Amino acid sequence: MTGASAEPSGGPEGPLAALRAQIDEVDGQLLDLLARRLELVAEVGEVKGRHGLPIYAPDRERSMIEAKRAMAGERGLSPDLVEDVLRRLMRESYTHEKNMGFTRQAPDLGPVVIVGGGGRMGRLFGRMLTLSGYAVRVVERADTPEQVAEAVADAGMVLVSVPIHDTVGVISGLPPLPEDCLLVDLTSTKRAAMAAMLEAHPGPVLGLHPMFGPDVDSFAKQVVAYVPGRFPERSGWLLEQIRLWGARMHAVEADEHDHAMGLIQALRHFSTFAYGWHLAHEDRDLDTLLALSSPIYRLELVMVGRLFAQDPELYFDIITGSSDAVELVERYHERYGEVIALLREGDREGFVRRFGEVGAWFGEHADRFLTESRILLAHADSTRQ
Amino acid sequence: MTGASAEPSGGPEGPLAALRAQIDEVDGQLLDLLARRLELVAEVGEVKGRHGLPIYAPDRERSMIEAKRAMAGERGLSPDLVEDVLRRLMRESYTHEKNMGFTRQAPDLGPVVIVGGGGRMGRLFGRMLTLSGYAVRVVERADTPEQVAEAVADAGMVLVSVPIHDTVGVISGLPPLPEDCLLVDLTSTKRAAMAAMLEAHPGPVLGLHPMFGPDVDSFAKQVVAYVPGRFPERSGWLLEQIRLWGARMHAVEADEHDHAMGLIQALRHFSTFAYGWHLAHEDRDLDTLLALSSPIYRLELVMVGRLFAQDPELYFDIITGSSDAVELVERYHERYGEVIALLREGDREGFVRRFGEVGAWFGEHADRFLTESRILLAHADSTRQ
Repeated sequence: MTGASAEPSGGPEGPLAALRAQIDEVDGQLLDLLARRLELVAEVGEVKGRHGLPIYAPDRERSMIEAKRAMAGERGLSPDLVEDVLRRLMRESYTHEKNMGFTRQAPDLGPVVIVGGGGRMGRLFGRMLTLSGYAVRVVERADTPEQVAEAVADAGMVLVSVPIHDTVGVISGLPPLPEDCLLVDLTSTKRAAMAAMLEAHPGPVLGLHPMFGPDVDSFAKQVVAYVPGRFPERSGWLLEQIRLWGARMHAVEADEHDHAMGLIQALRHFSTFAYGWHLAHEDRDLDTLLALSSPIYRLELVMVGRLFAQDPELYFDIITGSSDAVELVERYHERYGEVIALLREGDREGFVRRFGEVGAWFGEHADRFLTESRILLAHADSTRQ
Repeated sequence: MTGASAEPSGGPEGPLAALRAQIDEVDGQLLDLLARRLELVAEVGEVKGRHGLPIYAPDRERSMIEAKRAMAGERGLSPDLVEDVLRRLMRESYTHEKNMGFTRQAPDLGPVVIVGGGGRMGRLFGRMLTLSGYAVRVVERADTPEQVAEAVADAGMVLVSVPIHDTVGVISGLPPLPEDCLLVDLTSTKRAAMAAMLEAHPGPVLGLHPMFGPDVDSFAKQVVAYVPGRFPERSGWLLEQIRLWGARMHAVEADEHDHAMGLIQALRHFSTFAYGWHLAHEDRDLDTLLALSSPIYRLELVMVGRLFAQDPELYFDIITGSSDAVELVERYHERYGEVIALLREGDREGFVRRFGEVGAWFGEHADRFLTESRILLAHADSTRQ
């Protein structure tokens, strides 16, 4: 604007247009190479699928990334840049692999019946099981008891995927299952569901909790918690099957699971709700807040606001599904109240001391999280429009 | 593991090795192209720098991305994949551009004196001003009043970049500045600093607040809030200069700024502190929590834990620097307590109604945030090791 005085003769338009034409040419080649790489990786996935190898192999991934970082260094390129681009490509590949076939781990299993198979999570499992060669039947609320009984009569597995507050009722209402049939649920709290399944069915029982929503690109790198129920040797094939889809399986007892979920789900979601409630009552101008936001605060606003684009009933169920949620939330509220005193009294020394105690509790994770968050915030910055 | 029965003769090793060799070859070409593209963009940056054009041009960026998304579609590639890769490359380019020259917007300005220029933010501004052709002098705590007076005697600008709780003291203690000298500060609360600057210096005054930490890759796309002080026509060049570095400038009054910062900084950081304090007292096993974490909860743990790898004194200053921080935090605590009753009484209907009210307050932002967070969480997943 005031730079006109420094303008050399000729102006920038000519050289800029020439450079941009070259960039377009490079981008064309780049896109062709990206497409070629995805094709090759898809072929790898096909070979793996044919031989029953899991699509996600953490050790191989790490050594591949290391090798490519070294290649980057040799070319004077940033290793972080190359790692980020390759990880983004790998994510794309996993998405493609969601649509390929997987080796069936239980060749002789009877049909799989998904109760609530029309819901989003039920549909996701239905698709993956179909891609793995199982016959999948869907049972829904509208089906009569006779239809349900007919559907499960020769079932090899019954998978219950219904809203949390319906789970126990649906399980208790199941018709008798074949003795060998594996009964599985996907509920996000496990104590009550496990008890109901063990009560309803004398055969093999397994509890699952996918730690992700139904809109993931793929199972790759996602966590699925599992709670052993009865006859674990007869559900091992399912754990292997889900591993083959790329997930990490994490064994946990029902009590420990639900206790952890109190923090991970109930307190987390409830505090987000309370913060949204607070924001709405402070009633500041959201556009001003966004305009003045640091990358971290913008991220917080995004993570709070996203909740309210979703289903309140689901969140009420998740929050109240943890039996000790109320106590946990109350303890948090109480401790929050305690530390407000540090502000009220301007107690810098007390704040710094407690800060150090929490830092000691996080241990080496704190530094690791700081590094991880910097990478993440840089991503958030670069996608911000 | 159980897939051995399905193993075709020959095994997967041969075909996999051949495919991986091809992938390595493609990656070599890919890295060469990335390097070539960065070179071309650096040349664009050089031409822009010579002609005083800003390095970040939102409209051009958007239309370039749209054109490349279309190119992706023509090749059967995911437009999102191509956009993500290009944005990552652009971020890399901005980092490079931090080290190139910028057109100087105030050709006749005397030397710039940075008070606290040895701190991290002071060093960042010092580097950018040097790259823009200004003579930069640094004044530090150890300098005597005589040395400071000598440094500012012919200064064109004095930039105060010291810890929050020192800002007013340092400004009040400045020696008389030349009448034309521009006095600027970088403090994250503005009322007190503005008053002190206007009192200390009868010449041009401007308040700045960079909405980011000193470890950013570059100024590109970052927000710098500015508070007009006195003789705004004599600080316009500085706003242009910072725009040229790539930042977005956001004008705001000191009161409005500090009011917003109460939410953006004080409440945010204090709640993070309180949550860390709560976690440390619940004293669960952090590794179990991480193993069972959904992507969202992992992100939350990361954003909480990162705080405790940083300087407690700085955070105490930021939190207590907002004059109404205590009241704001207390209101939040009170509202949090009110909504706990919904849980205690199992008031589903009341929860759902309030949820809807908050959703209405967020308006169309809620859906936008949900989309944005999905992209971000996918990034977080793919960098998770």
